[in-house]
Amino acid sequence: MAPPALLVLVAVAVITAAATMARQASAARAAFAVASNATAGAGGKLNVHLVPHSHDDVGWLKTVDQYYVGSNNSIQRACVMNTLDSVVDALARNPDRKFVVVEQAFFQRWWAEQLPNIQAIVRKLVASGQIEFVNGGWCMHDEAAVHYIDMIDQTTLGHRMIKKQFNKTPSAGWQIDPFGHSAVQAYLLGAELGFNSLHFARIDYQDRERRKADKGLEVIWRGSRTFGSSAQIFTNIFPVNYSPPDGFGFEVLDEDIVPVQDDLQQFDNNIKERVNDFVAAAIAQANVTRTNHIMWTMGDDFSYQYAESWFRNMDKLIYHVNKDDRVHALYSTPSIYTDAKHISNESWPVKYDDYFPYADAKNAYWTGYYSSRPTFKRYVRVQSGYYLAARQIEFLLGRSSLGLFTTSLEDPMGIAQHHDAVSGTAKQHTTDDYSKRLALGASKVEKGVNIALTCLINSNRTCMSSVVKFSQCPLLNISYCPSTEETILAAKNLVVVAYNPLGWDRSEFIRVPVNDENLIVKSSDGTIIDSQLVEVDSVSRNLAKFYVKAYLGIIADKPPRYWLVFQASVPPMGWNSYYISRSIGTGHNSTVYVATMVSPSNDMVEVGPGPLKMSFSLAFGQLKRIFNSVSGVDLPIEQNFFWYRSNEGDTVDSQASGAYIFRPNVTTPTIASSPVPLKVIRGPLINEVHQQFNSWIYQVTRLYKNKEHAEVEYTIGPIPIDDDIGKEVITRLTKTWPQTARNHREDWGLNVTEPVAGNYYPVNLGVYVADEKYELSILVDRAVGASSIQDGELEIMLHRRILRDDNKGVDEPLGEVVCLDGSCKGLTARGTYYVKVDKLGHGAHWRRTYGQQVYSPYLLAFTHEYETSWKSYNVAKASMMDANYSLPDNVAIVTLQNLDDGTTLLRLAHLFQAAEDPRYSVITKVELRKAFGKRSIKELTETNLSANQKKSEMKKVDWRVTGNTENGPIPLKGGPVDSESLVVELGPMEIRTFLLKF
Amino acid sequence: MAPPALLVLVAVAVITAAATMARQASAARAAFAVASNATAGAGGKLNVHLVPHSHDDVGWLKTVDQYYVGSNNSIQRACVMNTLDSVVDALARNPDRKFVVVEQAFFQRWWAEQLPNIQAIVRKLVASGQIEFVNGGWCMHDEAAVHYIDMIDQTTLGHRMIKKQFNKTPSAGWQIDPFGHSAVQAYLLGAELGFNSLHFARIDYQDRERRKADKGLEVIWRGSRTFGSSAQIFTNIFPVNYSPPDGFGFEVLDEDIVPVQDDLQQFDNNIKERVNDFVAAAIAQANVTRTNHIMWTMGDDFSYQYAESWFRNMDKLIYHVNKDDRVHALYSTPSIYTDAKHISNESWPVKYDDYFPYADAKNAYWTGYYSSRPTFKRYVRVQSGYYLAARQIEFLLGRSSLGLFTTSLEDPMGIAQHHDAVSGTAKQHTTDDYSKRLALGASKVEKGVNIALTCLINSNRTCMSSVVKFSQCPLLNISYCPSTEETILAAKNLVVVAYNPLGWDRSEFIRVPVNDENLIVKSSDGTIIDSQLVEVDSVSRNLAKFYVKAYLGIIADKPPRYWLVFQASVPPMGWNSYYISRSIGTGHNSTVYVATMVSPSNDMVEVGPGPLKMSFSLAFGQLKRIFNSVSGVDLPIEQNFFWYRSNEGDTVDSQASGAYIFRPNVTTPTIASSPVPLKVIRGPLINEVHQQFNSWIYQVTRLYKNKEHAEVEYTIGPIPIDDDIGKEVITRLTKTWPQTARNHREDWGLNVTEPVAGNYYPVNLGVYVADEKYELSILVDRAVGASSIQDGELEIMLHRRILRDDNKGVDEPLGEVVCLDGSCKGLTARGTYYVKVDKLGHGAHWRRTYGQQVYSPYLLAFTHEYETSWKSYNVAKASMMDANYSLPDNVAIVTLQNLDDGTTLLRLAHLFQAAEDPRYSVITKVELRKAFGKRSIKELTETNLSANQKKSEMKKVDWRVTGNTENGPIPLKGGPVDSESLVVELGPMEIRTFLLKF
Repeated sequence: MAPPALLVLVAVAVITAAATMARQASAARAAFAVASNATAGAGGKLNVHLVPHSHDDVGWLKTVDQYYVGSNNSIQRACVMNTLDSVVDALARNPDRKFVVVEQAFFQRWWAEQLPNIQAIVRKLVASGQIEFVNGGWCMHDEAAVHYIDMIDQTTLGHRMIKKQFNKTPSAGWQIDPFGHSAVQAYLLGAELGFNSLHFARIDYQDRERRKADKGLEVIWRGSRTFGSSAQIFTNIFPVNYSPPDGFGFEVLDEDIVPVQDDLQQFDNNIKERVNDFVAAAIAQANVTRTNHIMWTMGDDFSYQYAESWFRNMDKLIYHVNKDDRVHALYSTPSIYTDAKHISNESWPVKYDDYFPYADAKNAYWTGYYSSRPTFKRYVRVQSGYYLAARQIEFLLGRSSLGLFTTSLEDPMGIAQHHDAVSGTAKQHTTDDYSKRLALGASKVEKGVNIALTCLINSNRTCMSSVVKFSQCPLLNISYCPSTEETILAAKNLVVVAYNPLGWDRSEFIRVPVNDENLIVKSSDGTIIDSQLVEVDSVSRNLAKFYVKAYLGIIADKPPRYWLVFQASVPPMGWNSYYISRSIGTGHNSTVYVATMVSPSNDMVEVGPGPLKMSFSLAFGQLKRIFNSVSGVDLPIEQNFFWYRSNEGDTVDSQASGAYIFRPNVTTPTIASSPVPLKVIRGPLINEVHQQFNSWIYQVTRLYKNKEHAEVEYTIGPIPIDDDIGKEVITRLTKTWPQTARNHREDWGLNVTEPVAGNYYPVNLGVYVADEKYELSILVDRAVGASSIQDGELEIMLHRRILRDDNKGVDEPLGEVVCLDGSCKGLTARGTYYVKVDKLGHGAHWRRTYGQQVYSPYLLAFTHEYETSWKSYNVAKASMMDANYSLPDNVAIVTLQNLDDGTTLLRLAHLFQAAEDPRYSVITKVELRKAFGKRSIKELTETNLSANQKKSEMKKVDWRVTGNTENGPIPLKGGPVDSESLVVELGPMEIRTFLLKF
Repeated sequence: MAPPALLVLVAVAVITAAATMARQASAARAAFAVASNATAGAGGKLNVHLVPHSHDDVGWLKTVDQYYVGSNNSIQRACVMNTLDSVVDALARNPDRKFVVVEQAFFQRWWAEQLPNIQAIVRKLVASGQIEFVNGGWCMHDEAAVHYIDMIDQTTLGHRMIKKQFNKTPSAGWQIDPFGHSAVQAYLLGAELGFNSLHFARIDYQDRERRKADKGLEVIWRGSRTFGSSAQIFTNIFPVNYSPPDGFGFEVLDEDIVPVQDDLQQFDNNIKERVNDFVAAAIAQANVTRTNHIMWTMGDDFSYQYAESWFRNMDKLIYHVNKDDRVHALYSTPSIYTDAKHISNESWPVKYDDYFPYADAKNAYWTGYYSSRPTFKRYVRVQSGYYLAARQIEFLLGRSSLGLFTTSLEDPMGIAQHHDAVSGTAKQHTTDDYSKRLALGASKVEKGVNIALTCLINSNRTCMSSVVKFSQCPLLNISYCPSTEETILAAKNLVVVAYNPLGWDRSEFIRVPVNDENLIVKSSDGTIIDSQLVEVDSVSRNLAKFYVKAYLGIIADKPPRYWLVFQASVPPMGWNSYYISRSIGTGHNSTVYVATMVSPSNDMVEVGPGPLKMSFSLAFGQLKRIFNSVSGVDLPIEQNFFWYRSNEGDTVDSQASGAYIFRPNVTTPTIASSPVPLKVIRGPLINEVHQQFNSWIYQVTRLYKNKEHAEVEYTIGPIPIDDDIGKEVITRLTKTWPQTARNHREDWGLNVTEPVAGNYYPVNLGVYVADEKYELSILVDRAVGASSIQDGELEIMLHRRILRDDNKGVDEPLGEVVCLDGSCKGLTARGTYYVKVDKLGHGAHWRRTYGQQVYSPYLLAFTHEYETSWKSYNVAKASMMDANYSLPDNVAIVTLQNLDDGTTLLRLAHLFQAAEDPRYSVITKVELRKAFGKRSIKELTETNLSANQKKSEMKKVDWRVTGNTENGPIPLKGGPVDSESLVVELGPMEIRTFLLKF
């Protein structure tokens, strides 16, 4: 379709996950069953691959612990221990039987509990192929609301354990349940992992019908425009869902089980009908499938609670179906199935883009969950960035008595990526459990970081933790930070140590709440630097008071009066220290500028202390114009808040809006308020525009002295429901843009049934729209859903409070509340998005680099110390890198992590797509010797993305494709790394993974 | 209490099961766990014996097949394969774990399906004691509605298989669910089996409360007044039911499972609370239990669907409870528990009588099921007698190419004794399945008997089955018998072969339907004998027409006009032949007397061609008087039908009458009709009185030429329900008798809440009441409930049609119907009871001997053959016994059966209780050489009742008892059998079991 239209779609995906590397061939199974095993597929006959599996949500209706141990069964009879225990027994009974194990969050806990005799049996079962690990990550991650680094982390966690315990590398992606699928999953979390296939169930119902008609459910997915066929993967989309065909489920808990009864001496024997039904179901599926191999997914949610019930019946089916001889049935796995598909030499359709949005019925677009539980989504994102930074600090410290303290977050973070976790589609109590796990994990990591920083900055690299006690402030976003709020003395400074996890020098503004007007901020070399005080607005003060009490049980007796703002420069992978002290004497001695409230004299007011200016109409209280004095871009843009009324189902279709589904009642949302009271605060470093859109929507727009973008902080909630109306709140920016892509799917014709919900897309990092001249870019601080419903509009859904359940399983309305003293009110969501305007083609640099900064803010640690003594034994400012070295703008450190085997995991990512930016979409270089200037690299091994196999050993499988496929230019890729020079080249989108020894 | 009162109670039990033998000590377990195993009980501490079990009904809500394979799960999620498969895996995982296996109907089917590797594992588990077989019969038989021979048969079937497969003899009775318990169970199906304990849950709720207060739930049960302490058994009555204490069930299917979580690293760990709860529950039970050993029944209906779910949690409980050290927990079995009880040297209360009737709440007397499904109860009884006779014929034939054809009935008969089968408390479809199994089994046995008889009567003992084709007539009771109904020729006789399974000469009347008035009956020596024709009444003709079509799909085009009646004499364990031919010429040549209808001239009419006379009032249509001219007993007795209106629950108590529960709406039943139209038919052999009590109750009283009792055939149904009233129909005989025992329990004070239902007792063979001078005895042809609600009354419940379910699980109203051409009507029940009056103390002989005849009628086989050719190659009359030898009147052959190991199983029973009859309650002798005159006994081994251990090897355990116990005279018992003379002595009630080799 039209290129401008495509921009929106591509932008969503591209910004979601940034880079990649050359696809290496997936490892072929050593012994392909069809060739080596008479039972594994019969020549010309239709082969029915029975793939036994259990889909075990890592939390959903119950918590992950409840699922594991099988408690809280009144909600759902599910116990993962039952499944794993009984599968092992069942597999041991018959060597033909197979089972795929998916979620390592469950498997690893179970494995650790097993006695050596059971572990020995399991090792045998894995070695013989009876157990095949598929996916192999900690969970079956969501693909819409996850950060790509989190997907990589949780997959690596599982893959490395499997490698260590069983010396196995999973070869199939098994994303059977996530609610739509991203192209990033296909190329990055598929091909780049060394997978040779990907399997899932949920695609748009219209798309599925078309594909069934064309036998196009199985495709070769080239998920990366940059890498094309070099990062393609065979993708198997199930014709119905991930259950067996009707009547072929054998779950012990099911009421409608139809056991296979082949004892002719007994009443009710049904083997003839069962075989006939089996053959009929197989032929029906063969009619929508290419080749004479079809897969039956023999399992369901938390099935195999007693595995023998399944295997006993499948044993009989296989025996009698093969005796019947019309079709051939066999126990199989995704890898056996894929191998069979591969040797068929069939040609397959090619797929490029996402399988988003997902709808399973006319009015059932699963686009609500892109924004469901926005505060939890933010919490996961915060921990993601924090976890990355903490691992760096752990690395910088080197092996120490602290051990690998960041591992406290690996399990909570792995779990949080589950497709009912960060997606916002778990029950409330489960979501609370996720949060609790993250909070506990983060608090342990925080303690480790505090100690590590003490050691790290110590001149002698000794840990004098008794001297310096750092603290951090996870609730800074609601202006709660005891360390900075406490009285600051003239002699004993408040020391702020800022750690920069990026590979670049960086100069960001720090904002901390304080209670004193007379403060001086000094940099580490003793220079007094500019700072500014901004009064904490009453919305924030109330918010802090309420939530600090509700969440911490602490009554903040003296809420902070000011934000202290100053700009901090920190070297790459390094830190800097700032000293805040009370100025001696009266306020006049303070160097801090107290921001002033402005009363504009005419209707239009222009705001901005730096290159970016925004103009607001006082009469309407609205943004009217954005002007960048550096680029000269000057655009008329309006912004407001609206809410869609949640549909509760109607006489035609009972489908309601809910945690999963977005179904607005009407296509036009209600405006929050107009006109809007507006307040402007000016100062030398920062200007703020405060807008009270209505009693429950407050927004502060911040423009900084030397920044070309605006930072917009919204506070939404409690969303009122006393009118018995569910509300789904959006912010919308409006200009007259060219036609954006709506009601459009790249490779199939959409029948439009939900003009709003059906045009929502998941946005992870940011979104932009462009016309012939300009780009408007927005970066977000968490996953959201976004769309452009009318030309010239860009809307982002920020919060949802809904009164009905959408009947997709969670069985709770999405109505988040926070309770204090026994009374509950709707949850308030606070967040920030970042806005920039650019000339066409010039936005990528900011989006890519500032996107990294949003994800990886400074890690701030606070202490109170005498300046002289501090300086006497501490290194106030330092970088891991050689002086004057930093990474190029187009490269980010995705992972730097000490592993438990003594190696260090390093991932470097090229941030730009091919042709995205003339300057940055090029081969770039990282000099590792300089980047790790303080440490000596002894050994370097390049691996696949999840670091469970050497890159040199990955094997590539070729696939034949149908029709004219797009053959782009050969992708640029870095060459091998010379072990002497240790220079790593990266082509656009390339992510390279290394195991280092220092 | 008063002796006359007791008579009623005793009569019920005594007649239910007739005999016994000296109790031998139960076999003590070789290695008693407490002594040999440190984990099996801690000294002074409270020991909690966890006994893992699953209560698997052999049919109830689902059929036995459906339970086995796990189909029809919408009714009940139950699959016995799951239990057995998963238990084996679970036991193999941990050698401490134990499990008791009960119902062999399931276990044996499962065992036969196992591969050798699994069988080997199971053998090890049994050998090590991890699996203990308890009960060990084919099912957990009912104790109220079963015939004692059926209980013995079904137990023997299971016990011998266990012995053969595992060389094990079960030592515990495990009757946990039957709805009340009989003393016969305790001494005969307990002690005489070699059991040393008996365990169950259901006793009257008032009794239970009293026993809990007195710590009297565990007793020494001396179930036989004749044998007293020599046939006692330790009996453990559970304090609640057969489930674990609340919260300690771990069934995979349960929603309220509370898993034991002892991982302190995980959320929701609950090990402290769980241990506290465990200890509290243990102490609560200890407070109602003697000694420091208590048993927890760790299981429920069809539990252990996934055994690991239970064992995993019990493992943890045992570990942590023992670590806690307040009480001691252990895996245990009934035998380990009993051993622990035994070595405690505690004294126990003594119990003598039944635990009948059973009530679990004020208005919930489980006395309805004594009569529920009367036609099924009759069908089971018919097959029981038939099976006994057929096994004799099989034995008589000797080992042949026919094989053991009677085994076709062993499984159906074993299943039918289940406490939801013959009890009438299964769902309709399950009951239909029981009937189908019996019908299929019987039809195979019938074929075998037909061939066997052909061989047996052949002079050369060769099977010329092509010459003589026998048929039998299972539907004789509704006058359907194609063989006799077909045209009889003068030359080609209808040959009737009557086989007598009793050990005595016998002379019974045979009645067959015929269509010819001109018939001659000849005995085997050619003599013409008296015969009589009685017109088939229209009720019977309609019944035959309807049911033959409904059940066989056959339209009887020519329903029979007459019953042909003649008296046949048959030697003991032998046969005789009768020839029926058409008389040549006109009717006058016939020797058959056609019965005539009588029109009496005054109100009172006396009926009876022999010694018994009954007088009826024509005005009221009622029996008025019974007179026996031999004994001179002349009693005024009335008889009528009534029905109780079924209670449907009321505002005070929602308890309804149903399949289990009898709860009449009022205490006074409604009379069927008065006056009653009456019809008298006279003849030389038989007189009949036909009474049409109302449109749905018809009764024929038959008095025979040389019989002192009356035979009363009732036809009840369809019971009308168009008035929306459930009806429970009784017959009542009334005279002024002394006070009968009502509202009375032998060893506890009853609070009367249900004056009718609470006085009903199960009657299996018969019941009698007596005053100072006379006895009125009634024998029944099936199990019924009976009572004496008013002095002088004796009532028997014969049929029930109820509109509501009684909420005890079956979840169906007891509303039996029969359907034809798509329309259904209430089931008609036809049956017979036998009435006799005697002087006090003289009734026992008839009850005991005629009771055997009712149970073991002639087995009749029919063929059409030329008299001369028949005689030329057949032995028309013969006996197994020596000429002129027969068994004494007080001995019956309970079993004579060829076993698959080449031996023959023989059981002889003394039929009389001690002191019951001065002439017959004595030591008696059976000369085996004469009794098996035609065969030579090579070897004789006496065994316990179920023939799984030598009698000489049975061990006796002594128990201390509390209080003054009744020490009756030392019971008379037969001495050892001399291997030369082979004379078997039997004392009163003694049953002796032998394995013979011929």
